[in-house]
Amino acid sequence: MASGEEVSNKQIILKDYVTGFPKETDMKMVSSSIKIKVPEGSKAVLVKNLYLSCDPYMRNLMKKQESRGYFDAYRPGSVLSGFGVSKILDSDHPDFKKGDLVWGITGWEEFSLIARTERLKIITHIEVPLSYYTSILGMPGMTAYAGIFEVCSPKKGEYVYVSAASGAVGQLVGQYAKSVGCYVVGSVGSKEKVDLLKTKFGFDEAFNYKEEQDLVVTLERYFPQGIDIYFENVGGAMLDAVILNMREHGRVAVCGMISQYNKEKRDGVQNLPLIVGKRIHIKGFSVFDYWHMYPQFLETTIQRIKEGKIVYAEDIVEGLENAPSALVGLYYGRNVGKQVVLLAHE
Amino acid sequence: MASGEEVSNKQIILKDYVTGFPKETDMKMVSSSIKIKVPEGSKAVLVKNLYLSCDPYMRNLMKKQESRGYFDAYRPGSVLSGFGVSKILDSDHPDFKKGDLVWGITGWEEFSLIARTERLKIITHIEVPLSYYTSILGMPGMTAYAGIFEVCSPKKGEYVYVSAASGAVGQLVGQYAKSVGCYVVGSVGSKEKVDLLKTKFGFDEAFNYKEEQDLVVTLERYFPQGIDIYFENVGGAMLDAVILNMREHGRVAVCGMISQYNKEKRDGVQNLPLIVGKRIHIKGFSVFDYWHMYPQFLETTIQRIKEGKIVYAEDIVEGLENAPSALVGLYYGRNVGKQVVLLAHE
Repeated sequence: MASGEEVSNKQIILKDYVTGFPKETDMKMVSSSIKIKVPEGSKAVLVKNLYLSCDPYMRNLMKKQESRGYFDAYRPGSVLSGFGVSKILDSDHPDFKKGDLVWGITGWEEFSLIARTERLKIITHIEVPLSYYTSILGMPGMTAYAGIFEVCSPKKGEYVYVSAASGAVGQLVGQYAKSVGCYVVGSVGSKEKVDLLKTKFGFDEAFNYKEEQDLVVTLERYFPQGIDIYFENVGGAMLDAVILNMREHGRVAVCGMISQYNKEKRDGVQNLPLIVGKRIHIKGFSVFDYWHMYPQFLETTIQRIKEGKIVYAEDIVEGLENAPSALVGLYYGRNVGKQVVLLAHE
Repeated sequence: MASGEEVSNKQIILKDYVTGFPKETDMKMVSSSIKIKVPEGSKAVLVKNLYLSCDPYMRNLMKKQESRGYFDAYRPGSVLSGFGVSKILDSDHPDFKKGDLVWGITGWEEFSLIARTERLKIITHIEVPLSYYTSILGMPGMTAYAGIFEVCSPKKGEYVYVSAASGAVGQLVGQYAKSVGCYVVGSVGSKEKVDLLKTKFGFDEAFNYKEEQDLVVTLERYFPQGIDIYFENVGGAMLDAVILNMREHGRVAVCGMISQYNKEKRDGVQNLPLIVGKRIHIKGFSVFDYWHMYPQFLETTIQRIKEGKIVYAEDIVEGLENAPSALVGLYYGRNVGKQVVLLAHE
């Protein structure tokens, strides 16, 4: 592709602000054109997007709000954005040069002009699948690592429960907790995912929450001694059931509450008064507070991958046109493993 | 009173397990007799009770349950127990002798035979009112001290909100937070208590929650910059409003949730998903995890009292017959300051 060439650029835009569960029709694919050239003096880069990441937090950007912090809120008519893996086609920034592979925040489109280059990292290890930079080596991986080790401080022999346990973050949380000698149980939404947890990820036990009548009783069955650590990805009734089953000095790392994102009126959690007697700590956390650990995380995780000490499941769909349904599928648990969209091979 | 003498002993017993708000008629005063003599070899002590403490946690002991940990669950027909100040009349325990003043867990009666002497501490400082060992120098004082300093780690300039702020614990939390340079606002249930907070305890601001239409708006008004630390004594809707008004990295020390103790179905807290983005930590805690700090706490607090750096309000009613209504009054906020019952002067 010659520099300065004008090419067509398929894009996914938000049609309107979303209420309730997002639908494919809340998004739309359009085609525009883009010049493969960064405006001089802009300090921007122009990239070809290779992989896009579907992550639960994106739902929160689909409602009317101010942009603040790391993410940009979506606006009707504008292109969605999110984590991705991209190749630099042109650069006006001294830190990036043509041909570099990067991961970070990009647009849901074939080509993106990126001004906020501080949200990009150059990929130096290419001996692993590039898609891993949207998953085990990217934001979800770092989230799992910081969440379990920094927020929960698991000790050998402790009882750990992970919800949404085959997801982008959960599958790693379980493996990390196992690596320090914890007993780990995960919950998921299908038999296929239960099998994945037990056979591929080495969880001690796993169950399909959709087949359980009473989560309180279920958790009692899997944790007769109680739960020390709960890695919270879902919220609502699950959290209530967990609090009842927690041991004294239990820790709840709240990574997300995906069951609540699409509700106009959120479920109320009723068992909070029990956290006093049990001295439970409930800690909301964000990966962005641990970003300084990324270089160390990257080295150790690549090493673990190479040694086969950690494994990972991705659910890769092909084609930008399939990105909206892949994203929507997250909220129905249709993905098996981390949901990624492949746009183009390098 | 001669050793070995048999005397009449008025007692407050629980009539039946309590549902909903406790009523005076859930308790009953009876009269029995007791011998002023400890059985030989029992290692027990026999005390005359001087002050009894009314504390919110007592409601939780009024429902059917197993006794476990520090407190004994109440049973229909048995004498209530709680913190108190007492004088030893006879002792079969080497650590206690006749004439000693002690504070700790005793019965709601004139005289008590106490077997679990590990829950008693000898009072060595008698230059302060003895009732203070049920309040500022006892469990509530230690709770406030550990809760604000150990659980919340307040820093100069931070914004602190205390609910039930004129109560046994709240009034001290506010003063301790002020002592390290925080901005402190308290909520209470009457104008009289608002005045107490502002004039006696030095809170920066105070409001009567019963006069507010919308707690979210109220907290926005008192904390335009948001809340860094919330010392939680009430729970329910108040916690929901606080979460909406918290700043990033806010801390919620959950000391109790008195608004929920009398509900058959507790209020649901709906705003928990917000603790992720704001990285809020919600920490249930118990004074019993900090008991080792008591000697240090006692010395510094007595010093602060003597220097006038800390003040305290007690609401003292006289007579065992008035103890049930004093206890019930806690749940309606009828007490102004720490609720104590005076049984006898030394």
